[in-house]
Amino acid sequence: MDKEDVLYQHGTLALLVPGLFSGTLPVGELLKHGDYGIGSVEALDGELIVVDGKPYLAKSTGDVLEVSDDELVPFANVHYDRPTDKYDRENISQSDLEKEILANHDYHNLFFAVKITGTFKKMQTRAFIGQRPYPTLAQLADNQRTFEADNIDGTVVGYFTPELYQGIGSAGFHVHFLSDNHKFGGHILGFELAKGTVTLQTFTDLDLHLPTHDSTFRRHEFDYDGMDSAIRGAEG
Amino acid sequence: MDKEDVLYQHGTLALLVPGLFSGTLPVGELLKHGDYGIGSVEALDGELIVVDGKPYLAKSTGDVLEVSDDELVPFANVHYDRPTDKYDRENISQSDLEKEILANHDYHNLFFAVKITGTFKKMQTRAFIGQRPYPTLAQLADNQRTFEADNIDGTVVGYFTPELYQGIGSAGFHVHFLSDNHKFGGHILGFELAKGTVTLQTFTDLDLHLPTHDSTFRRHEFDYDGMDSAIRGAEG
Repeated sequence: MDKEDVLYQHGTLALLVPGLFSGTLPVGELLKHGDYGIGSVEALDGELIVVDGKPYLAKSTGDVLEVSDDELVPFANVHYDRPTDKYDRENISQSDLEKEILANHDYHNLFFAVKITGTFKKMQTRAFIGQRPYPTLAQLADNQRTFEADNIDGTVVGYFTPELYQGIGSAGFHVHFLSDNHKFGGHILGFELAKGTVTLQTFTDLDLHLPTHDSTFRRHEFDYDGMDSAIRGAEG
Repeated sequence: MDKEDVLYQHGTLALLVPGLFSGTLPVGELLKHGDYGIGSVEALDGELIVVDGKPYLAKSTGDVLEVSDDELVPFANVHYDRPTDKYDRENISQSDLEKEILANHDYHNLFFAVKITGTFKKMQTRAFIGQRPYPTLAQLADNQRTFEADNIDGTVVGYFTPELYQGIGSAGFHVHFLSDNHKFGGHILGFELAKGTVTLQTFTDLDLHLPTHDSTFRRHEFDYDGMDSAIRGAEG
């Protein structure tokens, strides 16, 4: 097993649903497990994206900031970039591209990364607004900020999680964006790709790292009813 | 992260439900990730238990065999033994002991190992009978052999999987047994502990290793409805 075969995950998505938004791993530790990835920070106050080893946070103010190594994350995925598939693609929407990926590859039971670099005719993103005390994930999603850019160059980074793992991750595709000028980004709600390069990377191993020293997590009684719809509503 | 912090798992329990029983990892590879564990072999033809680095198979004939390194497993868990808790216990049933463990420790959201060495007043086990073509897990469970022993010395090895991970593992406790004389064993249906030492070991990381090169697994369309009850019926 090479390090590029592993998708590293800190936290389990289930803990975000009831509002366990405390950061439990420093970004500096997270980056020991990959150079590309996505996630969030304490209070879910923005959308994290790691590109070429550097972490950025797209905030609900519209700003994109570099993230320091001691910033704490409650949930994130990272991997070391080594694509298993690479091809160019033009003039396609996010939803058509995702359908095409699943139709052209027998990857629907695997964890895999998606990266797209290129020019986007349209890019729609959102960022959560951190609140205290922490609301539920659904309440946070009701109050998010959305952004739109036209004809923008940048990078899409994210993952496909098979249906079985809903609650551990967000089943289906989950992707974030960072513009090449590092001024625009967030959790992607939709895009139209003008022209770009798509890479996919399948993983043999999911390394699921849990915040076992966090007593709030350890003691929480999770309510699994309604978790699926809460995740689809907030992360879909 | 030390190697003792990792629970290694080959395969995902969901693949056993519809009958994907082909072995996809040699035991020799499995044993590079731990010295204690449980699992099954190709066709689910017996119950695997790893004690002190050695793999044994409890067969439906009642025999217990040593397993060679090239035997293939479809599903197994192993870890390196380094207990986080250790205590002596007398005169308690399996179900009371498991309730006591969860009541005395805030481990219900964690993956942890359970090991019990001692004398059992009663030990009830089962072993599946391999069939070809492969039936479903529920069909296999309908046709299992059960065994019972009184006043037997041996080792219980197994794991607790939090509810969220049902389908990846078997939610709750899942334990196998091997007698000290290596002549009796299997998947545990129940026991009465006379006197023994209980150890627990929590894990920060689940390393979920999938059979990504197996085309049957890659292409399978899993039916998630009914999976929970099928797993509880066969593995509970």
